[in-house]
Amino acid sequence: MRYHKVADETVRRLPIYLRGLLFLSEQGQQSISSRDLADFLGVNPWQIRKDFSYFGGFGTPGVGYDIKKLIKQINRILKLNVVRKAALVGVGNLGSVVLAYPGFGIYGFDIVAAFDTDPKKIGRKVKNITIEDVSNLQTLKGRKINLAIITVPRDAAQQTADALVKAGVKGILNFSPCYITVPRKVKVITIDIAMDLARLPYYMPVS
Amino acid sequence: MRYHKVADETVRRLPIYLRGLLFLSEQGQQSISSRDLADFLGVNPWQIRKDFSYFGGFGTPGVGYDIKKLIKQINRILKLNVVRKAALVGVGNLGSVVLAYPGFGIYGFDIVAAFDTDPKKIGRKVKNITIEDVSNLQTLKGRKINLAIITVPRDAAQQTADALVKAGVKGILNFSPCYITVPRKVKVITIDIAMDLARLPYYMPVS
Repeated sequence: MRYHKVADETVRRLPIYLRGLLFLSEQGQQSISSRDLADFLGVNPWQIRKDFSYFGGFGTPGVGYDIKKLIKQINRILKLNVVRKAALVGVGNLGSVVLAYPGFGIYGFDIVAAFDTDPKKIGRKVKNITIEDVSNLQTLKGRKINLAIITVPRDAAQQTADALVKAGVKGILNFSPCYITVPRKVKVITIDIAMDLARLPYYMPVS
Repeated sequence: MRYHKVADETVRRLPIYLRGLLFLSEQGQQSISSRDLADFLGVNPWQIRKDFSYFGGFGTPGVGYDIKKLIKQINRILKLNVVRKAALVGVGNLGSVVLAYPGFGIYGFDIVAAFDTDPKKIGRKVKNITIEDVSNLQTLKGRKINLAIITVPRDAAQQTADALVKAGVKGILNFSPCYITVPRKVKVITIDIAMDLARLPYYMPVS
Protein backbone atom coordinates (compact mmCIF):
# COMPACT_ATOMS: atom_id res chain seq x y z
CA MET A 1 0.00 0.00 0.00
CA ARG A 2 1.29 3.48 -0.85
CA TYR A 3 0.67 6.64 1.10
CA HIS A 4 0.57 10.27 0.11
CA LYS A 5 2.99 12.55 1.85
CA VAL A 6 1.62 13.26 5.31
CA ALA A 7 1.66 16.83 6.66
CA ASP A 8 4.32 17.55 9.30
CA GLU A 9 1.64 18.51 11.81
CA THR A 10 -0.06 15.16 11.30
CA VAL A 11 3.27 13.37 11.70
CA ARG A 12 3.67 15.25 14.97
CA ARG A 13 0.25 14.16 16.20
CA LEU A 14 0.41 10.52 15.11
CA PRO A 15 2.72 9.50 18.01
CA ILE A 16 0.25 11.14 20.42
CA TYR A 17 -2.60 9.05 18.99
CA LEU A 18 -0.36 5.98 18.88
CA ARG A 19 0.57 6.30 22.52
CA GLY A 20 -3.09 6.63 23.58
CA LEU A 21 -4.16 3.73 21.37
CA LEU A 22 -1.37 1.50 22.75
CA PHE A 23 -2.53 2.35 26.28
CA LEU A 24 -6.19 1.57 25.45
CA SER A 25 -5.21 -1.66 23.70
CA GLU A 26 -3.19 -2.65 26.77
CA GLN A 27 -6.38 -2.10 28.83
CA GLY A 28 -8.20 -4.54 26.56
CA GLN A 29 -10.25 -2.01 24.55
CA GLN A 30 -10.84 -3.00 20.90
CA SER A 31 -12.48 -0.03 19.23
CA ILE A 32 -13.06 3.65 19.86
CA SER A 33 -14.90 6.56 18.26
CA SER A 34 -12.98 9.67 17.23
CA ARG A 35 -14.97 11.59 19.84
CA ASP A 36 -14.00 9.26 22.70
CA LEU A 37 -10.38 9.14 21.57
CA ALA A 38 -10.36 12.95 21.38
CA ASP A 39 -11.82 13.18 24.89
CA PHE A 40 -9.27 10.73 26.22
CA LEU A 41 -6.32 12.55 24.66
CA GLY A 42 -7.65 16.07 25.14
CA VAL A 43 -7.57 16.95 21.44
CA ASN A 44 -10.18 17.92 18.81
CA PRO A 45 -12.26 15.08 17.31
CA TRP A 46 -12.30 16.80 13.89
CA GLN A 47 -8.51 16.93 14.01
CA ILE A 48 -8.35 13.18 14.60
CA ARG A 49 -10.79 12.48 11.77
CA LYS A 50 -8.82 14.76 9.46
CA ASP A 51 -5.49 13.15 10.39
CA PHE A 52 -6.84 9.63 10.01
CA SER A 53 -8.32 10.52 6.62
CA TYR A 54 -4.75 10.88 5.33
CA PHE A 55 -4.48 7.15 5.28
CA GLY A 56 -8.12 6.51 4.45
CA GLY A 57 -9.82 6.32 7.88
CA PHE A 58 -11.01 2.86 8.86
CA GLY A 59 -13.81 3.93 11.18
CA THR A 60 -17.06 1.95 11.06
CA PRO A 61 -20.19 4.07 11.73
CA GLY A 62 -21.59 3.30 15.17
CA VAL A 63 -18.55 1.19 16.11
CA GLY A 64 -15.61 3.52 15.59
CA TYR A 65 -12.03 2.73 14.79
CA ASP A 66 -10.45 -0.69 15.24
CA ILE A 67 -7.67 0.07 17.72
CA LYS A 68 -5.29 -2.74 16.70
CA LYS A 69 -5.63 -1.89 13.00
CA LEU A 70 -5.01 1.79 13.70
CA ILE A 71 -1.87 1.01 15.71
CA LYS A 72 -0.56 -1.11 12.85
CA GLN A 73 -1.27 1.59 10.26
CA ILE A 74 0.25 4.41 12.30
CA ASN A 75 3.34 2.30 13.00
CA ARG A 76 3.69 1.67 9.26
CA ILE A 77 3.28 5.35 8.34
CA LEU A 78 5.79 6.46 10.98
CA LYS A 79 8.12 3.64 9.86
CA LEU A 80 8.09 2.29 13.40
CA ASN A 81 7.36 -1.27 12.25
CA VAL A 82 11.03 -2.18 12.44
CA VAL A 83 13.22 -2.09 15.54
CA ARG A 84 15.62 0.82 15.26
CA LYS A 85 18.92 0.93 17.06
CA ALA A 86 19.84 4.20 18.72
CA ALA A 87 22.92 5.59 20.45
CA LEU A 88 22.99 8.06 23.33
CA VAL A 89 25.77 10.60 23.82
CA GLY A 90 26.26 12.15 27.27
CA VAL A 91 25.63 9.90 30.27
CA GLY A 92 25.07 12.64 32.87
CA ASN A 93 21.93 13.02 34.97
CA LEU A 94 19.57 13.56 32.05
CA GLY A 95 21.35 10.94 29.93
CA SER A 96 20.98 8.37 32.71
CA VAL A 97 17.27 9.13 33.02
CA VAL A 98 16.82 8.75 29.26
CA LEU A 99 18.79 5.47 29.26
CA ALA A 100 16.61 4.11 32.06
CA TYR A 101 13.36 5.40 30.55
CA PRO A 102 11.13 2.42 29.81
CA GLY A 103 9.10 4.15 27.11
CA PHE A 104 11.35 3.83 24.05
CA GLY A 105 10.60 0.15 23.43
CA ILE A 106 6.92 0.67 22.63
CA TYR A 107 7.91 2.75 19.61
CA GLY A 108 10.41 0.15 18.44
CA PHE A 109 13.54 1.91 19.67
CA ASP A 110 16.42 0.06 21.23
CA ILE A 111 19.16 2.17 22.78
CA VAL A 112 22.15 -0.10 22.23
CA ALA A 113 25.13 2.22 22.75
CA ALA A 114 26.11 5.05 25.08
CA PHE A 115 29.04 7.45 24.88
CA ASP A 116 30.73 9.92 27.21
CA THR A 117 34.00 11.84 27.52
CA ASP A 118 34.49 11.23 31.24
CA PRO A 119 37.19 8.55 31.81
CA LYS A 120 35.47 7.67 35.10
CA LYS A 121 32.30 6.73 33.23
CA ILE A 122 33.85 4.99 30.23
CA GLY A 123 33.76 1.22 30.72
CA ARG A 124 30.97 1.37 33.31
CA LYS A 125 27.71 -0.43 32.59
CA VAL A 126 24.30 1.24 32.57
CA LYS A 127 21.31 -0.98 31.79
CA ASN A 128 23.55 -3.63 30.16
CA ILE A 129 25.19 -0.99 27.97
CA THR A 130 28.91 -0.39 28.40
CA ILE A 131 29.68 3.33 28.19
CA GLU A 132 32.17 4.01 25.39
CA ASP A 133 34.57 6.85 24.68
CA VAL A 134 33.10 9.43 22.29
CA SER A 135 36.09 8.81 20.02
CA ASN A 136 34.28 5.55 19.20
CA LEU A 137 31.36 7.42 17.62
CA GLN A 138 32.82 6.73 14.18
CA THR A 139 31.97 3.04 14.64
CA LEU A 140 28.23 3.78 14.50
CA LYS A 141 28.00 3.37 10.73
CA GLY A 142 29.50 -0.11 10.84
CA ARG A 143 27.09 -1.02 13.65
CA LYS A 144 24.11 0.18 11.58
CA ILE A 145 23.06 2.72 14.21
CA ASN A 146 21.64 5.77 12.43
CA LEU A 147 19.60 7.34 15.21
CA ALA A 148 21.12 9.24 18.13
CA ILE A 149 20.06 11.00 21.31
CA ILE A 150 22.12 13.97 22.50
CA THR A 151 22.17 14.63 26.26
CA VAL A 152 25.48 16.51 26.53
CA PRO A 153 25.94 19.98 28.05
CA ARG A 154 24.94 22.88 25.81
CA ASP A 155 28.53 23.79 24.91
CA ALA A 156 29.27 20.32 23.56
CA ALA A 157 26.04 19.86 21.60
CA GLN A 158 27.13 21.16 18.18
CA GLN A 159 30.42 19.24 18.07
CA THR A 160 28.57 16.10 19.15
CA ALA A 161 26.04 16.61 16.35
CA ASP A 162 28.88 17.13 13.85
CA ALA A 163 30.54 13.88 14.94
CA LEU A 164 27.22 12.02 14.71
CA VAL A 165 26.54 13.31 11.20
CA LYS A 166 30.06 12.28 10.17
CA ALA A 167 29.32 8.81 11.59
CA GLY A 168 26.30 8.50 9.29
CA VAL A 169 23.53 9.30 11.76
CA LYS A 170 20.33 10.40 9.97
CA GLY A 171 18.10 11.36 12.88
CA ILE A 172 18.94 13.19 16.12
CA LEU A 173 16.84 13.76 19.22
CA ASN A 174 18.49 16.72 20.95
CA PHE A 175 17.86 17.27 24.67
CA SER A 176 20.56 19.92 25.02
CA PRO A 177 19.05 23.35 25.57
CA CYS A 178 20.35 24.89 22.33
CA TYR A 179 19.89 24.74 18.59
CA ILE A 180 22.19 22.62 16.49
CA THR A 181 22.89 22.93 12.79
CA VAL A 182 23.03 19.85 10.56
CA PRO A 183 22.93 19.16 6.82
CA ARG A 184 19.42 19.07 5.33
CA LYS A 185 19.49 15.28 4.87
CA VAL A 186 19.64 14.87 8.66
CA LYS A 187 16.52 15.43 10.77
CA VAL A 188 16.89 16.98 14.22
CA ILE A 189 14.17 17.27 16.83
CA THR A 190 15.10 19.47 19.78
CA ILE A 191 13.32 18.78 23.05
CA ASP A 192 12.95 21.34 25.79
CA ILE A 193 11.27 19.77 28.80
CA ALA A 194 10.32 23.24 30.05
CA MET A 195 8.65 24.23 26.80
CA ASP A 196 5.54 22.15 27.32
CA LEU A 197 4.98 23.89 30.63
CA ALA A 198 4.80 27.15 28.67
CA ARG A 199 1.48 26.03 27.16
CA LEU A 200 -0.24 25.54 30.51
CA PRO A 201 -0.88 29.09 31.75
CA TYR A 202 -2.89 29.90 28.60
CA TYR A 203 -5.51 27.44 29.83
CA MET A 204 -5.40 28.48 33.47
CA PRO A 205 -7.48 31.13 35.22
CA VAL A 206 -5.65 34.34 36.12
CA SER A 207 -4.64 33.90 39.74
CA MET B 1 -5.60 44.89 24.04
CA ARG B 2 -7.93 41.91 23.61
CA TYR B 3 -7.21 38.78 21.66
CA HIS B 4 -9.44 36.31 19.92
CA LYS B 5 -9.31 32.77 21.16
CA VAL B 6 -6.17 31.19 19.72
CA ALA B 7 -6.33 27.68 18.22
CA ASP B 8 -4.84 24.92 20.39
CA GLU B 9 -2.36 24.06 17.65
CA THR B 10 -1.15 27.66 17.59
CA VAL B 11 -0.85 27.66 21.39
CA ARG B 12 1.27 24.55 21.03
CA ARG B 13 3.55 26.17 18.48
CA LEU B 14 3.94 29.56 20.20
CA PRO B 15 6.43 28.24 22.80
CA ILE B 16 8.50 26.77 19.96
CA TYR B 17 8.65 30.19 18.28
CA LEU B 18 9.23 31.89 21.64
CA ARG B 19 12.18 29.67 22.44
CA GLY B 20 13.80 30.32 19.07
CA LEU B 21 13.16 34.07 19.30
CA LEU B 22 14.64 34.21 22.82
CA PHE B 23 17.73 32.42 21.55
CA LEU B 24 18.11 34.78 18.57
CA SER B 25 17.55 37.81 20.82
CA GLU B 26 20.24 36.50 23.17
CA GLN B 27 22.58 36.36 20.13
CA GLY B 28 21.89 40.04 19.48
CA GLN B 29 19.57 39.65 16.48
CA GLN B 30 16.81 42.29 16.26
CA SER B 31 14.54 41.24 13.41
CA ILE B 32 13.83 38.18 11.29
CA SER B 33 11.70 37.22 8.31
CA SER B 34 9.16 34.42 8.64
CA ARG B 35 11.21 32.46 6.09
CA ASP B 36 14.46 32.72 8.09
CA LEU B 37 12.67 31.94 11.36
CA ALA B 38 11.05 28.93 9.68
CA ASP B 39 14.43 27.75 8.39
CA PHE B 40 15.99 28.18 11.82
CA LEU B 41 13.23 26.27 13.60
CA GLY B 42 12.62 23.71 10.88
CA VAL B 43 8.94 24.57 10.43
CA ASN B 44 6.81 25.94 7.57
CA PRO B 45 7.00 29.69 6.89
CA TRP B 46 3.28 29.83 5.98
CA GLN B 47 2.49 28.22 9.33
CA ILE B 48 4.43 30.95 11.15
CA ARG B 49 2.69 33.70 9.18
CA LYS B 50 -0.68 32.12 9.85
CA ASP B 51 0.02 31.73 13.58
CA PHE B 52 1.32 35.29 13.91
CA SER B 53 -1.73 36.61 12.07
CA TYR B 54 -3.83 35.53 15.07
CA PHE B 55 -2.50 38.50 16.94
CA GLY B 56 -2.21 40.76 13.91
CA GLY B 57 1.32 40.03 12.60
CA PHE B 58 3.81 42.86 13.11
CA GLY B 59 6.09 42.05 10.19
CA THR B 60 7.47 44.95 8.14
CA PRO B 61 7.96 44.13 4.43
CA GLY B 62 11.66 43.77 3.63
CA VAL B 63 12.62 43.92 7.33
CA GLY B 64 10.62 41.14 8.91
CA TYR B 65 9.40 40.76 12.44
CA ASP B 66 10.75 42.75 15.37
CA ILE B 67 12.07 39.98 17.64
CA LYS B 68 11.69 41.81 20.97
CA LYS B 69 8.12 42.88 20.16
CA LEU B 70 7.21 39.35 19.13
CA ILE B 71 8.61 37.90 22.36
CA LYS B 72 6.54 40.37 24.36
CA GLN B 73 3.37 39.60 22.45
CA ILE B 74 3.78 35.82 22.64
CA ASN B 75 4.52 36.05 26.37
CA ARG B 76 1.34 38.08 26.82
CA ILE B 77 -0.80 35.64 24.81
CA LEU B 78 0.59 32.62 26.66
CA LYS B 79 0.13 34.51 29.95
CA LEU B 80 3.83 34.06 30.65
CA ASN B 81 4.32 37.73 31.52
CA VAL B 82 4.01 37.00 35.23
CA VAL B 83 6.26 34.73 37.25
CA ARG B 84 4.37 31.56 38.11
CA LYS B 85 5.22 29.42 41.07
CA ALA B 86 5.25 25.69 40.50
CA ALA B 87 5.59 22.62 42.71
CA LEU B 88 7.23 19.33 41.79
CA VAL B 89 6.08 15.97 43.17
CA GLY B 90 8.47 13.02 43.06
CA VAL B 91 12.16 13.76 43.59
CA GLY B 92 13.57 10.61 41.96
CA ASN B 93 16.02 10.58 39.05
CA LEU B 94 13.72 12.33 36.61
CA GLY B 95 12.42 14.72 39.27
CA SER B 96 15.97 15.72 40.17
CA VAL B 97 16.79 16.39 36.53
CA VAL B 98 13.66 18.52 36.17
CA LEU B 99 14.47 20.43 39.39
CA ALA B 100 17.98 21.13 38.12
CA TYR B 101 16.87 22.00 34.59
CA PRO B 102 17.83 25.60 33.87
CA GLY B 103 15.20 26.14 31.19
CA PHE B 104 12.08 26.91 33.25
CA GLY B 105 13.08 30.44 34.18
CA ILE B 106 12.99 31.78 30.62
CA TYR B 107 9.26 31.04 30.49
CA GLY B 108 8.64 32.71 33.85
CA PHE B 109 8.39 29.55 35.91
CA ASP B 110 9.84 29.26 39.36
CA ILE B 111 9.82 25.81 40.94
CA VAL B 112 9.53 26.74 44.61
CA ALA B 113 8.45 23.50 46.27
CA ALA B 114 9.25 19.80 45.98
CA PHE B 115 7.51 16.82 47.55
CA ASP B 116 8.29 13.15 48.04
CA THR B 117 7.10 10.19 50.13
CA ASP B 118 10.56 8.87 50.97
CA PRO B 119 11.50 9.76 54.60
CA LYS B 120 15.17 9.70 53.54
CA LYS B 121 14.55 12.48 51.06
CA ILE B 122 12.18 14.63 53.11
CA GLY B 123 14.06 17.53 54.68
CA ARG B 124 16.95 17.32 52.24
CA LYS B 125 17.72 20.34 50.08
CA VAL B 126 17.82 20.30 46.29
CA LYS B 127 18.63 23.59 44.56
CA ASN B 128 17.67 25.61 47.68
CA ILE B 129 14.35 23.80 47.93
CA THR B 130 13.69 21.69 51.00
CA ILE B 131 11.90 18.48 50.04
CA GLU B 132 8.58 18.19 51.88
CA ASP B 133 6.33 15.27 52.76
CA VAL B 134 3.53 14.80 50.22
CA SER B 135 1.07 15.16 53.09
CA ASN B 136 1.96 18.86 52.88
CA LEU B 137 0.48 19.14 49.37
CA GLN B 138 -2.67 20.66 50.88
CA THR B 139 -0.67 23.78 51.76
CA LEU B 140 -0.23 24.68 48.07
CA LYS B 141 -3.42 26.75 47.92
CA GLY B 142 -2.33 28.96 50.80
CA ARG B 143 1.07 29.39 49.14
CA LYS B 144 -0.56 30.46 45.86
CA ILE B 145 1.04 27.63 43.89
CA ASN B 146 -1.39 26.48 41.21
CA LEU B 147 0.97 24.77 38.79
CA ALA B 148 2.53 21.36 39.41
CA ILE B 149 4.94 18.94 37.79
CA ILE B 150 4.42 15.21 38.38
CA THR B 151 7.53 13.01 38.26
CA VAL B 152 6.33 10.11 40.39
CA PRO B 153 6.26 6.44 39.33
CA ARG B 154 3.37 5.45 37.08
CA ASP B 155 1.42 3.73 39.86
CA ALA B 156 1.35 6.86 42.01
CA ALA B 157 0.49 9.35 39.25
CA GLN B 158 -3.31 9.36 39.53
CA GLN B 159 -3.41 9.71 43.32
CA THR B 160 -0.83 12.49 43.09
CA ALA B 161 -2.98 14.28 40.51
CA ASP B 162 -6.06 13.87 42.74
CA ALA B 163 -4.21 15.39 45.70
CA LEU B 164 -2.96 18.28 43.54
CA VAL B 165 -6.46 19.04 42.24
CA LYS B 166 -7.76 18.97 45.81
CA ALA B 167 -5.01 21.45 46.72
CA GLY B 168 -6.29 23.87 44.08
CA VAL B 169 -3.76 23.20 41.32
CA LYS B 170 -5.06 24.31 37.90
CA GLY B 171 -2.33 23.10 35.59
CA ILE B 172 -0.31 19.87 35.65
CA LEU B 173 2.72 18.85 33.62
CA ASN B 174 2.79 15.06 33.84
CA PHE B 175 6.05 13.23 33.16
CA SER B 176 4.75 9.88 34.44
CA PRO B 177 4.28 7.44 31.58
CA CYS B 178 0.51 7.11 31.96
CA TYR B 179 -2.71 9.04 31.47
CA ILE B 180 -4.30 10.80 34.42
CA THR B 181 -7.89 11.91 34.78
CA VAL B 182 -8.74 15.34 36.18
CA PRO B 183 -11.82 17.59 36.27
CA ARG B 184 -12.35 19.66 33.11
CA LYS B 185 -11.32 22.92 34.82
CA VAL B 186 -7.81 21.53 35.27
CA LYS B 187 -5.42 21.33 32.30
CA VAL B 188 -2.99 18.41 32.06
CA ILE B 189 -0.16 18.08 29.59
CA THR B 190 1.44 14.63 29.56
CA ILE B 191 5.04 14.44 28.38
CA ASP B 192 6.59 11.30 27.01
CA ILE B 193 10.25 11.88 26.30
CA ALA B 194 10.25 8.87 23.97
CA MET B 195 7.34 10.13 21.92
CA ASP B 196 9.30 12.78 20.07
CA LEU B 197 11.72 10.13 18.92
CA ALA B 198 8.76 8.42 17.24
CA ARG B 199 8.58 11.26 14.71
CA LEU B 200 12.15 10.83 13.51
CA PRO B 201 12.04 7.63 11.41
CA TYR B 202 9.36 9.14 9.16
CA TYR B 203 11.96 11.60 7.92
CA MET B 204 14.81 9.11 7.69
CA PRO B 205 15.82 6.96 4.71
CA VAL B 206 15.00 3.25 5.00
CA SER B 207 18.19 1.62 6.22
